[in-house]
Order: sequence, then structure tokens, then C-alpha cells
Amino acid sequence: MSLMLDEIRQQPQVLQGILANPPPALVHLRKRFSKNPPTVIVIVARGTSNNAGLFARYLFEITLGIPTFLAAPSISTLYRRQAVPSSALVMGVSQSGESTDINAYMKVAKGTGALTLGITNEAGSTLAALVDEVLLTQAGTESSVAATKTYTAQLMTLYCLAQALGSKLPDDALKKIPGAVRTQLDHEADVEQLAQDYLEMSHAIVIGRGLNFSNSFEFALKLMETNYVVAAAFSAANFAHGPIAMVEEGFPVFVFTPPGPTSIETGKLVTRLAASCVDTIGIGPAGVLADLPCAHRIELHGPTPLAPGYPADVLTPICSIVPAQLFAAHLAAVKGLDPDHPRMLSKVTHTM
Amino acid sequence: MSLMLDEIRQQPQVLQGILANPPPALVHLRKRFSKNPPTVIVIVARGTSNNAGLFARYLFEITLGIPTFLAAPSISTLYRRQAVPSSALVMGVSQSGESTDINAYMKVAKGTGALTLGITNEAGSTLAALVDEVLLTQAGTESSVAATKTYTAQLMTLYCLAQALGSKLPDDALKKIPGAVRTQLDHEADVEQLAQDYLEMSHAIVIGRGLNFSNSFEFALKLMETNYVVAAAFSAANFAHGPIAMVEEGFPVFVFTPPGPTSIETGKLVTRLAASCVDTIGIGPAGVLADLPCAHRIELHGPTPLAPGYPADVLTPICSIVPAQLFAAHLAAVKGLDPDHPRMLSKVTHTM
Repeated sequence: MSLMLDEIRQQPQVLQGILANPPPALVHLRKRFSKNPPTVIVIVARGTSNNAGLFARYLFEITLGIPTFLAAPSISTLYRRQAVPSSALVMGVSQSGESTDINAYMKVAKGTGALTLGITNEAGSTLAALVDEVLLTQAGTESSVAATKTYTAQLMTLYCLAQALGSKLPDDALKKIPGAVRTQLDHEADVEQLAQDYLEMSHAIVIGRGLNFSNSFEFALKLMETNYVVAAAFSAANFAHGPIAMVEEGFPVFVFTPPGPTSIETGKLVTRLAASCVDTIGIGPAGVLADLPCAHRIELHGPTPLAPGYPADVLTPICSIVPAQLFAAHLAAVKGLDPDHPRMLSKVTHTM
Repeated sequence: MSLMLDEIRQQPQVLQGILANPPPALVHLRKRFSKNPPTVIVIVARGTSNNAGLFARYLFEITLGIPTFLAAPSISTLYRRQAVPSSALVMGVSQSGESTDINAYMKVAKGTGALTLGITNEAGSTLAALVDEVLLTQAGTESSVAATKTYTAQLMTLYCLAQALGSKLPDDALKKIPGAVRTQLDHEADVEQLAQDYLEMSHAIVIGRGLNFSNSFEFALKLMETNYVVAAAFSAANFAHGPIAMVEEGFPVFVFTPPGPTSIETGKLVTRLAASCVDTIGIGPAGVLADLPCAHRIELHGPTPLAPGYPADVLTPICSIVPAQLFAAHLAAVKGLDPDHPRMLSKVTHTM
């Protein structure tokens, strides 16, 4: 069995652990933010951590109304300019805490007087040492190069951070997530079965929107790095503005189909794709998938975790990515690839 | 001949026209910004216009130091939340001015009291009517569904806007661009020749960085919509954080290789790819390409337009995209495809 598969299966425990022992800095941050809330949040990250940042963007804007943006690190690292709003909370997200450019960016941001926050899995990392505040993702060591449990741990940590920033997401809603993840893992065999049919897949599109937009990038990344599938991620809207032209009969298009505000627009796209006999693979709860003309379905089992007063998809991203992770891991297994050691990659990537 | 090819060839005149008759609102905006400069700029757009927005992000942060971010329209259109900094300049970019979601976003932004600016090619559009200020891109009617001259017209208009916001890019530097574009068009036959070799290309990666990052998305979009090639765009840095695993011997990877601050990092990537016998196609000036182990070269001819005191790549994006546009148009021609009427697309796209 791959380390990746093993680490995918550790996720319910990891997530439960975060909720049982939230990072201690949250108490302090909650006080700090209640007195002096950030007017803008800037996130800087690469790879999977950047996908978590994309999730944070939607989470913070939707549940807090705080404008949240992803920084372009090269402005600081290569062009040597600074463009950080002075009242910003600047968040660096990095599993290892050793990404050269993220750390360089955070150092510059700290110099401007902005409050800097690091989200990392490594307490002893360079990132943890240089920022004002640290949230540890507490996922345990991730040994596979393909990030899985650290992604969902980052997402859960970001929910906790949203609470500290003032969102009213109740603890008991978050506590439904680890169990819901376990339920998806109980149906691993269904995903393993479906993966067999995609042995010859050379390319794919992954569509997500809103809170699940980040999952489309994360699933595409898993397909690229563990299966060498050419996979491009788009929002349902941007996909309709051009890229849709390239798909034809049988072209695999994975679509995250959560309930909630994005469902009508996503449904319209699936219907359009189905009319062209595209191989749409819906990833969502049975209740949503039942109404969509998907060619294949990756069903999310059990009730969707909900938080009263928030959109129906607010707690879906962690559960939704799990079958996608399983799909990538099992596809690699049937292809005879080692997802833990992709070509040309190592666990810590140094770029500027 | 396709309309697309005809419109690509119109670009020197269009660009010259913008510089000869800059949008009159610029005079007024220059005064407004000198008294009350925006602290943050938020851009909202889709498709090619979103790629122009990505360019603006780098241009404004590098030449002005004003934090500039791309908005997620769904926050406003689907989730019904607002997350616009009150002191922001909010820019909607749309060729047609009729993108449903962009207009909905701009309407909400205007309601918050933010200064709203529309950049559009259509004076009589809904966007032009609803914003506080309008900059017309003056590209003339674009008849091909594949945007070309409106993209470079947007880029030139954004340079003019940067001047109005306080950048010191001199007029005589901008005036070098139309001639430099003409020089690239003079070498159209070389690009047409190279395109013949890519008749069977089913997938490709396009890499750009910094000011040319937007071009990687724009070229990928042209390959997708006019040639049905599965094309994914990445920054050189994010590509190294995972997607690089998927490329192997002969895999086509187009790389924009401008001079300036991004050249060392981009060069490192090209060298790494060359070691794996990837088919790297460099797009850049002969002087830069000469030092890189690219498998193929799309050479930019003539001197690189420069602006004293600014990074060497500051004026390269318009010239760099031209051979890429030509490549896409000629590849479509040899494949017998109609780039003016891609499958499933029309000129104006309505999404929410």
C-alpha cells in the first residue's frame, strides 16, 4: 500500500485531533482580532498549500466579509517591490515551512508592520520562527510527496481561524466533519472500482466553484503529480468562457457538485456537457447527483455536514476531496505508479 | 484567411491608435488619483479579459506598489456577500461589456461607494453605462470569437491607466510597442512553419512568470479554444510544486522567456526540463534564448522595448503574445479548424 493511501485514511483522526486540541494561538488571536480586526487578508503559498489558501479566500469572504486575496510572491522575491496593504493580516501557508519564496515574502511583509501568521505542519520550521503568530496544522509527519492529510488539516485549521476572526460557525458543526470523512472512507471500494475504468486516461478537466474551487485545483494536482494525467482546473464560469471548446465525446470532466449557492450554475454546465456526450464524473451527495445527467458518479455518502445560517456548501470541501484523493491513489496503484515519489519532485520545493 | 488572423495583423494600428488618441477619461482620472490615490485595486473579469486583469495586477504592483487583486465574482453573484475594501478602485474588464456576472459584481461594488471603472471595447455596453468611469479599448469590432486584438488593446489601455495612477512609464517607451509588434508580424512565416510540426499536439503546458504570467493563460486559452489542445498554464514556480511530474520526453512545454527579473528562475526550469528531453519551446528575444537549452525557439525579433528605471520585461507582454497568437491561428489553419467559431462558444458569454 502507498504511504499516500495510508495518509488519506488517517484523516478522520487528524481532523478530530485538531478539533480536540485546537492550536493554542487561537485563543490569543481571537482576542487580538476582536479588538483590531484585519480589513484585508493576504495569503501567500505554493502548490497544495496555495489550494488551501484559495479555500480560505472563499471561506473568509463568505463567512466574514473580509476581502481576502492570494499574493503573487514574485512581486517581492524577484521584482523586489512591496504591495501589501498596511492593515492586512498576511498569512503564509506551507506544509514544511521551508518554501524559500514564501519565507522571503513573509519576511518582507513583517518588515512593513503587517501582522504575519504562519500556518505550517512543522513547529521547528523557518516559517514558524519568522512570523508573529503560528498555527500548527498538527497532521503528523506526511511521508508521501503527494499531500493529502496536510491539505485537509490546513482546511480544518482555516475553519478554526475563521472562528477566531469572528465567524459564527459552531463547534458542533465542525465536529461533524471527521465522521463524514470516515463515512467516505468506508466506501473506498466504490472509488477503487471506478478508478479501474480510467487506466487509459491521459487528460482530464476538473471543475469546482466557490468553496469547492480549491478542490478542483487540488484534485487536478493529484492527477498530475501521482498519475501524470494532464489535468486542468477551472471554475464552472471561466470554463464556459473558452476552455469548454476543447471537450468532446468521452472527454473526462470531473465536476464537484455540492449543494448550495453554486449548484444551479454547476448544474447548467453539467447539462450542457452531457448534451455533447462528454464523460462528466460528478462528485457530490446522492441528492444532488440524482438530478444531474452525469455519465459517472462519485457519490458522497451520509448527510452533508451543515452549519445553520451559512450556505449549504460551507462544510463540504473537506469531505468532497476525500474520494478524489482515493481516486488518484487507486488509479496510481492500478497503473503501477508510485504516488509517494513522483518524477522530478521532492517533499520540499525551493523556488523564488 | 480566418478573421482571427486578420485581427492579429491589425494590432500595430490598434495599438498606435490608442497611443495617438488615449481615452479622454485618463486626463480626468489622473487628476482624481493625484488627489486621492486608491490604496487597493480590485479587478473583476472572465476569460481573456481576466488574463488582462492578471497582467494589470503585476503592472500595478511593480510600477506603483498598489496592492492589486483579482476578485472572485461568485462571492457577490452566487453567495450574495460583499468583500470589497471601501477605499478600493474596482475595475471591471470586459470586451463586450455584457458579461452578466461582471456587471452584477460592478453594480454591487458601486453600491458600496467604491470608485468603479469599466474597461471595455463597447461604448454602448451595459458595463459602460453602470460604472463611474469608462476606458474604451478602441480596438474596433472584434469579429472572431477568439480574442486577440482586444487583449493587446486592453494591455495597452492598462499601461495608460498605470500612467494615470502615477507610474513614470514614459510615453516614448510605450510608443515603441506598436512597431515592435509589427516586427513580430513581419516574421509570421517562421511561426507558421513551426506550427506545422505541432499538428498532432493533443496537450501542452504554457509557462510564464511575473508580467508575462498572464500571457501563459492567454496562449493556453487560444490553444484550447481554437485548437482543442488540452493546455494548462502555470507560473514557473508553481509548476515546480507538483505539475512538473507529468511531463516527459517530447511533452510540449511552451515557456515565455523575457529578459529581466524572472529570467534566472525561468532559465533554471528550462534547464531542468531539457535534462528530461521535454520539448521546451522558448518564446523570447534571441539574446535570452541563445543561453537556454530549448528544443525549439519562437524568437522575438528586433530590440526589446525598454522603459528606463523599470524592469527589463515591463514592456514585453504585448510583443510576446503576438507570435503565440499567430501560432494558434496557423495551427488551427493546418488542422482545418475554424478558429473564429469554436465549438460551444459565442462571442458574449453569460455566466453567474
